[in-house]
Amino acid sequence: MNLKIAVLPGDGIGPEVILQAKKALYAIAEVYNHEFVFEDALMGAVAIDKTGSPLPEQTLNLCLNTDAVLLGAIGDPKYDNNPSAKVRPEQGLLKLRKELGLFANIRPIKPYKALIESSPLKKEIIEGADFTIFRELTGGAYFGTKTLNEEGTHASDLCEYTEEEITRIAHLAFKSAQNRRKKLTLVDKANVLETSRLWRKVVQKVSENYPDVKLDFLFVDNAAMQLILNPKQFDVILTENLFGDILSDEASVITGSIGLLPSVSLGEKHALFEPIHGSYPQAKGKNIANPIASILAAALLLEHFGLTKEANVVFLAVKKAIEFNVVTVDLKPDSKFGTNEVGEFVSNFI
Amino acid sequence: MNLKIAVLPGDGIGPEVILQAKKALYAIAEVYNHEFVFEDALMGAVAIDKTGSPLPEQTLNLCLNTDAVLLGAIGDPKYDNNPSAKVRPEQGLLKLRKELGLFANIRPIKPYKALIESSPLKKEIIEGADFTIFRELTGGAYFGTKTLNEEGTHASDLCEYTEEEITRIAHLAFKSAQNRRKKLTLVDKANVLETSRLWRKVVQKVSENYPDVKLDFLFVDNAAMQLILNPKQFDVILTENLFGDILSDEASVITGSIGLLPSVSLGEKHALFEPIHGSYPQAKGKNIANPIASILAAALLLEHFGLTKEANVVFLAVKKAIEFNVVTVDLKPDSKFGTNEVGEFVSNFI
Ligand SMILES: CC(C)[C@H](C(=O)O)[C@@H](O)C(=O)O
Ligand SMILES: CC(C)[C@H](C(=O)O)[C@@H](O)C(=O)O
Repeated sequence: MNLKIAVLPGDGIGPEVILQAKKALYAIAEVYNHEFVFEDALMGAVAIDKTGSPLPEQTLNLCLNTDAVLLGAIGDPKYDNNPSAKVRPEQGLLKLRKELGLFANIRPIKPYKALIESSPLKKEIIEGADFTIFRELTGGAYFGTKTLNEEGTHASDLCEYTEEEITRIAHLAFKSAQNRRKKLTLVDKANVLETSRLWRKVVQKVSENYPDVKLDFLFVDNAAMQLILNPKQFDVILTENLFGDILSDEASVITGSIGLLPSVSLGEKHALFEPIHGSYPQAKGKNIANPIASILAAALLLEHFGLTKEANVVFLAVKKAIEFNVVTVDLKPDSKFGTNEVGEFVSNFI
Repeated sequence: MNLKIAVLPGDGIGPEVILQAKKALYAIAEVYNHEFVFEDALMGAVAIDKTGSPLPEQTLNLCLNTDAVLLGAIGDPKYDNNPSAKVRPEQGLLKLRKELGLFANIRPIKPYKALIESSPLKKEIIEGADFTIFRELTGGAYFGTKTLNEEGTHASDLCEYTEEEITRIAHLAFKSAQNRRKKLTLVDKANVLETSRLWRKVVQKVSENYPDVKLDFLFVDNAAMQLILNPKQFDVILTENLFGDILSDEASVITGSIGLLPSVSLGEKHALFEPIHGSYPQAKGKNIANPIASILAAALLLEHFGLTKEANVVFLAVKKAIEFNVVTVDLKPDSKFGTNEVGEFVSNFI
C-alpha cells in the first residue's frame, strides 16, 4: 500500500516520541512491502516561533492533501500563563480539527495486565475495564462565539450544537457499540444545559436504528465519579467536546499510564492519529518520554487503512516491550531504558 | 443562640437523611441551651408534584427570611429522561441559589482514617489528602441564556462571567488558603475559553492582596487527572460553576464515600448547608441511606454561626460512629445499622 502521511511533531516531547512512531512505520513498510511517504510540517508553539502562526497555510494544505496525519503534541507554558496572548499554540490544533472536519475523537481505554499495579486505582476496580470514549471534536464551547468587552471585565463563550453534529458522531458510536458489548452511555448535563437536552433527544432518535444496543444516560458529574468507582460498567461513552476533554483525560489515568494511550480523530475525509499525552515540556530532550502512545497511534493508523496484520504486529511489539520491561521511567522508576531504546526494541521486533 | 432554620428535605432519600441532621441539632440545642426553630418547606420534584413549581413562592420567602437553609437532595429520574419536560426539579435549586445570592459552594475533602480502605484509590495515594474546593455557584453556563430553535434542531448555552463575580469568590478562596497551607490552584480551560482567560486575569489580580499564598493554574482536563494521580498536591482549588460541579464530585469519591461529605453554599446574606450526594431514589424509604453527610452539614451550620464547640461535638460523634462501625452498608457491606440507627447513635452521643 502507498500512503502519504503528514507528520506534525509539534512541541515539547512531540518530536522525540513521533520519531519512534515513524521508526515503527518504516519497519512495517520494509517488512510488509508498503510505501509510506512522510512529510514533516510545523504546528503549535514551534510554528508560532518560526512563522508567527500556530498552523501555517503550508501545514494545513499538506494535511488536506495526505492520507493521514500523525501528530505529536502541542503546547508551551510560555503561552499558558499569559491570558492575553493573541496567538496560542492550541489555536493551531483547533483550526486543524475544524478544517479537516475531524468531528469524532476516539479513545480506547484498556489497562495492560502487566501494568495494572501502576494504576492509582485498586487492582480489583480497574482490572477488566475496557471501554471507548467518543468525544465530539468540532463543536461546543470550543468553537462557539467568544466575547470580551473593551474594559476586559466581561467574557463569554457560547456552546452550540446542531442535530446534524450530534447525529453523525452518534452513528459512529452506536456502530462501535454493536461491535463491542452493545452498551452506549451518553454523558451530558441535561438537568441544566439546553445543548445537553438536544443531545439526549437526538441520541434517543438515532438509537432507534440500533435496537441491539442498550442506551443509557449519565450526568457528567456522576460520570466523573463512576469512572473511578466502577469503570467496568462502561462499554462505549459518547459525549460533547468539553465533557469529553475532561472525562477522557480522567479515564486515561486510571489505566496506570497516560503514556500508553493513543487516540484517533476522524472526519468524513480525514484522519489524525496522536498520543493522548501533552507536550510535557519538562521532559523535552531528556530521552525519558514514553514513546508507546505514539507508536500505538501509528498502529491505529495502520488499522484504519485495513492493515490489520501490520497493526497487530505493532501491538504485539509493544506488549513484548512491556513484558520484557523495556519501558521508560514513568512505568518503571528504576528503568535504564529511554525513549530511543523503547522505540528501537519495537522496530527491531517488527 | 436563637436560630431560625429553613429545612428543605427534597426528593428521594432527602427527607430521611435530613431528619437525622435535625435530630443532631435538636440534641445540641438541648444540651447547650440554644433555641433552634425549624420550618420545613417544599422544593424539587416533590414541590412540582404538590404545587406545580420546583421552588414555590412560599419556600423562597421562608429561605429569604431565615438564618440558614438546610437542604436534603433534589432530583427525580422521571424528569431526567424526558429532555422536553418544561418544569424540572433542578430549576428550583438553581433559582434558590440565585435568589439567595449563594455564589460560593465550598466542599472540604478529607478522607477519614478509619475508612481509607474504602477508597477506590490506593491507600498511599489518598492518605493525607486534605483540600477544599471553592466552586462558583451563580454564574457560568448554568445561568446564561439558553436557546432552542423552533424545529428543535439547534441549541445553545451561554457561559458568561464578570470580573465582579470572579473577584468575590476569589477573595473567599484566598482567605481560606491563608488559614490553610497557603496554596491556591485555579482550574480553568484558559487555552480554549475566553471566560477562563478572564478568570486567570482576575484571579492573578486578586492574588496581589495575598502575597503569602502561592497561586498556580491547572487546565481542567489535567486537574481531572491530578485529583486521582496525586490529590495531596492540592490545598485550595478555585473554579467556575460547571468545572466545579464535575471536579468536586470526582474529588468526593476518592475519599471512599460520598455519603460522608457536606457542603456549604455562601452568599453575602445567606447560607445553605447540604450533603453532597444526590437524591438516590433507589434507596428511598429503605433505611439504608447514609445520614452522615447531612449530619456534618448540620455541624458546618453550627460552625458558621460561631458555635465551634457544638460543631466539634457533632464531628466527634460522627468520628465515633465510624470507629464503632455504626455505619450504613455503603461503608460496611455487612452492617446491621441503617439511617435511623446511625442518626440515633450520633444524637445520643451528643
Ligand atoms: C490542547 C487542547 C486544546 C486540547 C483540547 O482541549 O482539546 C487537548 O487537551 C486535547 O484533549 O486534545
Ligand atoms: C442538581 C444539579 C443541578 C446540581 C448542580 O449541577 O449544581 C448538583 O449536581 C450539585 O452539584 O449540586
